[in-house]
Amino acid sequence: MSDSKGRKTISVLSPVMEKNRRIAAYNRKRFDERGLNVLNLISSPGAGKTTLLEVLVRRFGRAIAVIEGDVQTERDAERIRAAGAVAYQIETHGACHLDAQRISDAFDRMVIPSECRILAIENVGNLICPSTYDLGEHLKIGLLSLPEGDDKVLKYPPLFSRVDLLVVTKMDLLPHMDFDPDRVEAECRSLNPDVRCFRVSARTGEGIDALCAELWG
Amino acid sequence: MSDSKGRKTISVLSPVMEKNRRIAAYNRKRFDERGLNVLNLISSPGAGKTTLLEVLVRRFGRAIAVIEGDVQTERDAERIRAAGAVAYQIETHGACHLDAQRISDAFDRMVIPSECRILAIENVGNLICPSTYDLGEHLKIGLLSLPEGDDKVLKYPPLFSRVDLLVVTKMDLLPHMDFDPDRVEAECRSLNPDVRCFRVSARTGEGIDALCAELWG
Repeated sequence: MSDSKGRKTISVLSPVMEKNRRIAAYNRKRFDERGLNVLNLISSPGAGKTTLLEVLVRRFGRAIAVIEGDVQTERDAERIRAAGAVAYQIETHGACHLDAQRISDAFDRMVIPSECRILAIENVGNLICPSTYDLGEHLKIGLLSLPEGDDKVLKYPPLFSRVDLLVVTKMDLLPHMDFDPDRVEAECRSLNPDVRCFRVSARTGEGIDALCAELWG
Repeated sequence: MSDSKGRKTISVLSPVMEKNRRIAAYNRKRFDERGLNVLNLISSPGAGKTTLLEVLVRRFGRAIAVIEGDVQTERDAERIRAAGAVAYQIETHGACHLDAQRISDAFDRMVIPSECRILAIENVGNLICPSTYDLGEHLKIGLLSLPEGDDKVLKYPPLFSRVDLLVVTKMDLLPHMDFDPDRVEAECRSLNPDVRCFRVSARTGEGIDALCAELWG
């Protein structure tokens, strides 16, 4: 791209990001060989990633497997196992995002059932740092919950300009909140014209059928 | 501390963190000379930092001034100015936390009224990365909102083990949520026995008097 004085700039990846890009490409090749559709779910803490995954597990059973990323605790993997799917927990011990190497290591270690078609990676709860790390996924999914407010897309453009899917969660709270889903989707499309938008509630089931159809492909 | 084999380990700060620590100490000295009580507010996006600050501005008027940290947009500083206080916006353009140098620069540039006694720094919305950066504040304040869920303290210990104040926000949503504030406070005290805990609602005013008394000192 050119700046206001007509000087051209080119992007150069840092060594860390270049190494991540190479490992992500290798991950994607391995996922393709296994016939897996791989999802990278990114949101703030508490936006409903694990709750949405529990719903998907009840829908897809062992056709979905999950890699959980958390700073600490095995709580989320335990929830997914209780819902009936294979889950592998990564504890980052302070790190604020997952990277392609951690996913490669997890993929080596976990036992994925032969009937599995979808591998969902729940990233660390963080709206910023995970957005620039390719994990080798096929779909980058940004979740935004109603209680976070409808002003977040333009405040966090590194994520929302990159997502393939925008999923607005906790739609059942709409009567109690001053939140405009149309504004959120319009601001996301202004950054990212190809984004596909979904509105869901894990509690009422709203929008889950359409999202499942999209993920099953 | 010693590990299981009795080997002793010592903590060594990275050059980045050591530089930040030095600048933070300089900031704190300058804040003390001005008689300012400086707050560092940390939470997920949408936990209610700006909304709480609007309430504090309506209470304290120009005795409070605000430094806003966001990845992008001037929206939060505009909200604080509309409420009646001086606000300085830092846009980090992708960076996931504030550091002491950015605060030093902001403090040089902003015009703080002579009647000001409290300087509130609203950190970038992120429950992880801001927790290890000392800005020179007197009080590190962690906010957790009801919709984020009551399991977050032990999932994000780098923040909750360091906060001076824990503020549970959006208490007005308690009837609609499966959230146990006692659990949150107990888990925070298990990491951090000296933490002082507050429960507030900007909407109903619950808990605001007690929090204001604490901040006014």
